[in-house]
Amino acid sequence: MTKNTNIRISLPAVCFVWQIAMIILFGVFVRYDEESDTHWIEHKRRKNISTNLENDFYYRYPSFQDVHVMIFVGFGFLMTFLKRYSFGGVGFNFLIAAFGIQWALLMQGWFHHLDSDDWKIKIGIENLINADFCVAGCLIAYGACLGKVSPVQLMVLTLFGVTLFAVEEYIILELLYAKDAGGSMVIHTFGAYYGLTISRILYRPLLSQSKNYQGSVYHSDVFAMIGTLFLWMFWPSFNSAIADHGDGQHRAVINTYLTLASSVLTAFAVSSLSQKHGKLDMVHIQNATLAGGVAMGTAAEFMITPYGSLIVGFCSGIVSTLGYLYLTPFMEKTLKIQYTCGIHNLHGMPGVIGGIVGAITAASASESVYGKEGLINTFDFKDAVANRTVSIQGGHQAAGLCVAIAFGLAGGALVGGILKLPIWGDPADANCFDDEVYWEVPEDEDENIPASRHLDMNHISTK
Amino acid sequence: MTKNTNIRISLPAVCFVWQIAMIILFGVFVRYDEESDTHWIEHKRRKNISTNLENDFYYRYPSFQDVHVMIFVGFGFLMTFLKRYSFGGVGFNFLIAAFGIQWALLMQGWFHHLDSDDWKIKIGIENLINADFCVAGCLIAYGACLGKVSPVQLMVLTLFGVTLFAVEEYIILELLYAKDAGGSMVIHTFGAYYGLTISRILYRPLLSQSKNYQGSVYHSDVFAMIGTLFLWMFWPSFNSAIADHGDGQHRAVINTYLTLASSVLTAFAVSSLSQKHGKLDMVHIQNATLAGGVAMGTAAEFMITPYGSLIVGFCSGIVSTLGYLYLTPFMEKTLKIQYTCGIHNLHGMPGVIGGIVGAITAASASESVYGKEGLINTFDFKDAVANRTVSIQGGHQAAGLCVAIAFGLAGGALVGGILKLPIWGDPADANCFDDEVYWEVPEDEDENIPASRHLDMNHISTK
Amino acid sequence: MTKNTNIRISLPAVCFVWQIAMIILFGVFVRYDEESDTHWIEHKRRKNISTNLENDFYYRYPSFQDVHVMIFVGFGFLMTFLKRYSFGGVGFNFLIAAFGIQWALLMQGWFHHLDSDDWKIKIGIENLINADFCVAGCLIAYGACLGKVSPVQLMVLTLFGVTLFAVEEYIILELLYAKDAGGSMVIHTFGAYYGLTISRILYRPLLSQSKNYQGSVYHSDVFAMIGTLFLWMFWPSFNSAIADHGDGQHRAVINTYLTLASSVLTAFAVSSLSQKHGKLDMVHIQNATLAGGVAMGTAAEFMITPYGSLIVGFCSGIVSTLGYLYLTPFMEKTLKIQYTCGIHNLHGMPGVIGGIVGAITAASASESVYGKEGLINTFDFKDAVANRTVSIQGGHQAAGLCVAIAFGLAGGALVGGILKLPIWGDPADANCFDDEVYWEVPEDEDENIPASRHLDMNHISTK
Repeated sequence: MTKNTNIRISLPAVCFVWQIAMIILFGVFVRYDEESDTHWIEHKRRKNISTNLENDFYYRYPSFQDVHVMIFVGFGFLMTFLKRYSFGGVGFNFLIAAFGIQWALLMQGWFHHLDSDDWKIKIGIENLINADFCVAGCLIAYGACLGKVSPVQLMVLTLFGVTLFAVEEYIILELLYAKDAGGSMVIHTFGAYYGLTISRILYRPLLSQSKNYQGSVYHSDVFAMIGTLFLWMFWPSFNSAIADHGDGQHRAVINTYLTLASSVLTAFAVSSLSQKHGKLDMVHIQNATLAGGVAMGTAAEFMITPYGSLIVGFCSGIVSTLGYLYLTPFMEKTLKIQYTCGIHNLHGMPGVIGGIVGAITAASASESVYGKEGLINTFDFKDAVANRTVSIQGGHQAAGLCVAIAFGLAGGALVGGILKLPIWGDPADANCFDDEVYWEVPEDEDENIPASRHLDMNHISTK
Repeated sequence: MTKNTNIRISLPAVCFVWQIAMIILFGVFVRYDEESDTHWIEHKRRKNISTNLENDFYYRYPSFQDVHVMIFVGFGFLMTFLKRYSFGGVGFNFLIAAFGIQWALLMQGWFHHLDSDDWKIKIGIENLINADFCVAGCLIAYGACLGKVSPVQLMVLTLFGVTLFAVEEYIILELLYAKDAGGSMVIHTFGAYYGLTISRILYRPLLSQSKNYQGSVYHSDVFAMIGTLFLWMFWPSFNSAIADHGDGQHRAVINTYLTLASSVLTAFAVSSLSQKHGKLDMVHIQNATLAGGVAMGTAAEFMITPYGSLIVGFCSGIVSTLGYLYLTPFMEKTLKIQYTCGIHNLHGMPGVIGGIVGAITAASASESVYGKEGLINTFDFKDAVANRTVSIQGGHQAAGLCVAIAFGLAGGALVGGILKLPIWGDPADANCFDDEVYWEVPEDEDENIPASRHLDMNHISTK
Repeated sequence: MTKNTNIRISLPAVCFVWQIAMIILFGVFVRYDEESDTHWIEHKRRKNISTNLENDFYYRYPSFQDVHVMIFVGFGFLMTFLKRYSFGGVGFNFLIAAFGIQWALLMQGWFHHLDSDDWKIKIGIENLINADFCVAGCLIAYGACLGKVSPVQLMVLTLFGVTLFAVEEYIILELLYAKDAGGSMVIHTFGAYYGLTISRILYRPLLSQSKNYQGSVYHSDVFAMIGTLFLWMFWPSFNSAIADHGDGQHRAVINTYLTLASSVLTAFAVSSLSQKHGKLDMVHIQNATLAGGVAMGTAAEFMITPYGSLIVGFCSGIVSTLGYLYLTPFMEKTLKIQYTCGIHNLHGMPGVIGGIVGAITAASASESVYGKEGLINTFDFKDAVANRTVSIQGGHQAAGLCVAIAFGLAGGALVGGILKLPIWGDPADANCFDDEVYWEVPEDEDENIPASRHLDMNHISTK
């Protein structure tokens, strides 16, 4: 069975129409906020701010750039591991992230930042970080579908994914007043179940036909390590980027640094333990080493203590690697969920762990540990939730986790149904995981330079 | 025809002589500025500065490091796309950038930072950023000559390029008082026309003899994406690195972030539209996605508005991709300009667009949008230009663009003539784009490990 | 001779036991410091600090992230240059660094940061930087053993290396009061001689049996350039990360930037000079270009002047490249020291140069250059060393260098002896430099996709 994978009309149409829509909507809705507007100089005087350094830019910009690298190089290169889908891995990641951040600025703006005076969204550096965060959810979902969908489908997945994300985030952060600085629930849990459900609906029973491409080669595995390492190194910035100024950001970095270090050791240990001669598996090293960062997403700001962080990393590294070993094959066979990048092991389970850890840590917070003001600051116990107790906070954290899962499953079902329509130019089973379908691929090295040498050698060997 | 490409005397001689010259000139002219000298502690007290954070270092260093990555990894890896010129792409980029930044500190210092008390150049973090910027112009020119010149020629190209840059920059920024924070005119337009003119003069009618190397292979295209992404991600830092403290830097980041996102979508769209089955071309994705950043170089600091930024990215992504499709072949055939990296599409046209956008945005600035103080601050309407109106500013911006083009063309003609002398060890036509000429290249993978396996297979298949 | 390289029990056992030990020790000893604790808000009020920006986090975090990239991507990818040991190069680097930073937080904490009130180690961002620094010493030693040891041996090397480092650092910095901001002595000299001595003890007379793997291929050399460039670009952050706030950090960046630029030119020059046709050698470009950064590690904070920095880079680039050309072969043949990554040329000699430069610069410091307060500040002439003169300081710097070398040699002898025990699962001579031993390596590209094409071609060519 061959499929029509010609996207010469559909992809440009989607790109142009959506980009023009963005321009119009930005024209109507989006303006600079106080700190990025030329009126900052007056604003500064009015608020009696003595130095330009108090501009939020200087608190957030270094973290923002790290997050930006995680989104484009981290996620992008992590998905180059397939032997013949590196262009698609890094290229489509680039496309949908670039679209997604624009749509996220609007969606998150409408829900969180709409100025009630003039109905404008006022953007600054924190909005850019949040837009990157929002897109991360969709990139996780892309990981599940890697190699099996067309770029047009990915654009649709992103359009709906960002929309769902903004609603879910609004419920969790602003209705439930749950805390989720690094997005264990909002980003990772939602993204994973959104992607898994879509993947379930797009189930391809004959995918094994393309199996010879569904693996890595030596150099593609090294490329993927670029993604792994930039994610791993910059995860402290991810979890601290929108944490509270001062001790909040500082603590989030320490906790994430420690939990990541711990999950590296247990990922290596379980990987080695699982193979006949103790040989390590690159899939585990590329992915499960990151589980600690996901699992620390909610509690990063809290006083979880340094050893608490190590324990979280310890457990999530083990759970994630075991997931690759046992759960992924089980889910493919029994539940008919084929997810290329193992996102359930890297984002799903660690995300749920992170949500639970966050709820427990919140529920067990106390004034003796946090200090009276510290407790109020950390959990923002003011205004509508001024009288909330920590145990109630813990309950709301748990409720937030349920909302994230529910949105992932329901949203994935909806979007999966849409993506199943036979109009999107997705590849046939036999052509999955092959860049040839959507890219002009250069002639192979082996057909080109060295090929002639091979032929020469052949002549020699057959003479 | 074979050429003498032995650079065993010339390259070391140039490196040693120039490095020694740098040491002597630095010894005579270069000292630490007030903020990097141990006298800072006294200076701080004298100026009543309360905190070390007010040291410019903390405003600029994160952006500096991002710019540094763009120069060495961004430009360097973008030029690894050729199948057998990756060593030269990233290696010579490294060499000439390392030389160029030293010479730029001197040249820019003499023109902009010479202390009239003691005739010393006082350097600090902003000088390092400007030196990196200055070198960017020469790296763009290198892109035009990639694979066709010797490292000695590149050193000469850089020596003259930096010199011309410093003069041109002085005229545009300090005589015309034009604004160009991200260097659309000063860096990109100048660099592109400088490189194109050199390339025209070094025209090789028989270059097609080496055509089998003038393309990419699968993995070299993935390597080039490392360059693309680091350029793309850090471009907001490039355009904001020397912008005004506070809202200036903040706004430059927002504008550049948006314009880059927009140019990704139109680059993908036009790339897909241009091919039979809508397949994407890696050359476009690697380059045209960046056009937005170039085109926002002048106006990044201005109140161009978020949707204005999206429009600029929209147009420059289209123009740049169309350039690759139609203009590059035309220029090679008709104008006899062979430029390996398509710099006219990535830096030339978007740079000109950026200059024009800057002039228009400046000319249409108003107190109602900027605020009275904001307008003065943004355009530095003080001292010699205290009474300048925005329309006059717009005119001077346009004049600046003309100066950049003129310096590129005239400087390129001069330097091209010098580089045409038959003394520089440049490769023969048949050896262009081949690392073998200037590098000890390891034996090929295919001749080595797998080769034996091939031979084995041959034996099997012929038995 | 075959060896038992099965690490299925030993590697997981070491990882689990050591990670659990870390958790217990962190539980007993490690807490947040004042600036990362929720009590910061009270602390701030008590100390009359007006802004969150005065939290050390904002002074140090950008530099920390750069150092983090150097440790994991810089060192990791620099070690991917071998044709079939890229997994091990980047993967084991990841493993031992992740373990090492935890152990370093404890060891350095006990020696430097133990709170005498409650016997807790209070950690903040500076501890994270120091932990990364500490691990760098072990990664240098890993470079000497690359491809010849098992991951279990590397874990042992790291455990002892970090321990020795903390003691040596305590003696040099806190007993001798020597200054070493970028660790020329403490990190590079110690790490190099530690690794070289281990390598000497693990001498393999028949290593030449595996020589066909002890080289690079085209793409592995390009991968290694990723490591080189990230080390090169971020070295200014390395040398300034824990320098004094304000002018100290600022000056360290300028000095390191210049010295690195200078060593690039002389490394290229000597590399070209050494080959028949002036062809450049990737090994030199990947390594000797970095020598300037190592050699500026001690004096980075001092008023060495910009031209002084250029001179240091000039010399160290030459010495390092000459080391690769003459010293490495000599040491292998005569001294029986086989060190894969040439660490003596990149870290050993430049580290010693750095220590000497530091001693001379300190000894020749004067109030006329530094200012009265500047001199006291830069060398911390207060408390126990309030009356120290600069010549005494110079002497103590030189003493520090001797301590670093002594610890490297003695520690290496001890640990080398331990690692020689036949229980660690190290590879046989014939299997050195081969990822197959410890990794599940994907089937080769050439055996897979293109292989079939080769076979087809064979059929054609033999018909």
